[in-house]
Amino acid sequence: MYDVRDWRHVFKLDPNKDIDDDLLERVCESGTDAIVVGGSDGVTIDNVLDLMVRVRRFPLPCVLEVSTVETVTPGFDLYFIPTVLNSTNSKWITGLHFEAMREYGELMNPDELVVEGYCIANTECKAAQLTGVSQKMDKEDVAAYARLAGHLLKLPVFYLEYSGVYGDPKVVQKAADILSETKTTFVYGGGIQTAEQAKEMGKYADVIVVGNAVYDFPEEALKTVAAVKK
Amino acid sequence: MYDVRDWRHVFKLDPNKDIDDDLLERVCESGTDAIVVGGSDGVTIDNVLDLMVRVRRFPLPCVLEVSTVETVTPGFDLYFIPTVLNSTNSKWITGLHFEAMREYGELMNPDELVVEGYCIANTECKAAQLTGVSQKMDKEDVAAYARLAGHLLKLPVFYLEYSGVYGDPKVVQKAADILSETKTTFVYGGGIQTAEQAKEMGKYADVIVVGNAVYDFPEEALKTVAAVKK
Repeated sequence: MYDVRDWRHVFKLDPNKDIDDDLLERVCESGTDAIVVGGSDGVTIDNVLDLMVRVRRFPLPCVLEVSTVETVTPGFDLYFIPTVLNSTNSKWITGLHFEAMREYGELMNPDELVVEGYCIANTECKAAQLTGVSQKMDKEDVAAYARLAGHLLKLPVFYLEYSGVYGDPKVVQKAADILSETKTTFVYGGGIQTAEQAKEMGKYADVIVVGNAVYDFPEEALKTVAAVKK
Repeated sequence: MYDVRDWRHVFKLDPNKDIDDDLLERVCESGTDAIVVGGSDGVTIDNVLDLMVRVRRFPLPCVLEVSTVETVTPGFDLYFIPTVLNSTNSKWITGLHFEAMREYGELMNPDELVVEGYCIANTECKAAQLTGVSQKMDKEDVAAYARLAGHLLKLPVFYLEYSGVYGDPKVVQKAADILSETKTTFVYGGGIQTAEQAKEMGKYADVIVVGNAVYDFPEEALKTVAAVKK
């Protein structure tokens, strides 16, 4: 199961947040399809490596979502590389990617690289501020970004990111309709804290991401796996 | 032959330049694999349609390389959509593409859309000035953009554009080496005026583009087809 097209659920763990061994074990053995290691700030090579080593004890895919070139390290199964489609700053669309290819391109195995076409729908979040996303989007705007990723660029992943906020199911449904005609995997992330919410977004998205809830409401978070796997 | 992966040679015709019926016939019947309609300025819906209708009398693929959203019209076999990987202005990487998807996405057939990962290597040309490309590039820089298109974004086309200037064969060879491991078609354009030059760049690139020479040195330009097809 090292192919994102077969996944339904992932937990995203933040290297900058504490998680004890007991909870980490329950997360890794929850039946989720993968652990994605990634965060917006305070991510260092040390805390990335530390979390990787701890997750590596469990037999499931361990993925690094790359946020800075400096924290890229060998040892992960896959590398998710965001390109922020709705950024106004070229650095976050192709700029950092060029630098990474310039520096490490020769060492990287293309088969392990998965580009995520990010669409950041919550303009208040840290990721939006960092990457220069300020456009308030309606359903048709998100639909256009889904088409851009799925119909035009034909990227492997379209990642609709509400980052900490639970999205509008109608917007998610519309994006899902568009992407259902494509080979692009539709990943939804943002504000999923309960099994009910996981089930709702899981009706539309191919993969749902549960992040903060692992730290804030771990018991509920663990129930999101079964909610989308049934 | 409506698949760019099978092509070796295309003529790029500028809707803003005059070409008489006799030369157009010789160009279209030269054995080239396709006619690409595209230019940097003075392109209007009227001159695009006019050229399309004239090329349409000949049985070869007729492609629109989209430079502005306003000049997109049905009737072409394929639509090449440039995304300028080394632009510093997000408008030319994903911005205009979002707008096109927002406005016309529902009407467009994804199978007819081919994204070209453009790398503009001649910073003096009009296209560079228009799209905010100012970076002088060495061989390793171009190689990194080739990796970005081929290994990371896995785009169907990497288009190395020297626009009016004949490129450095060593740079082209390096990019070709990188792209030979990928499914990305390597298109070279810029300054090809003779059969000899076509042959040299054709050793490395999958497809060579002959543009200005059609207007400036038509007899020599017509010989470039056989030079890469042998």
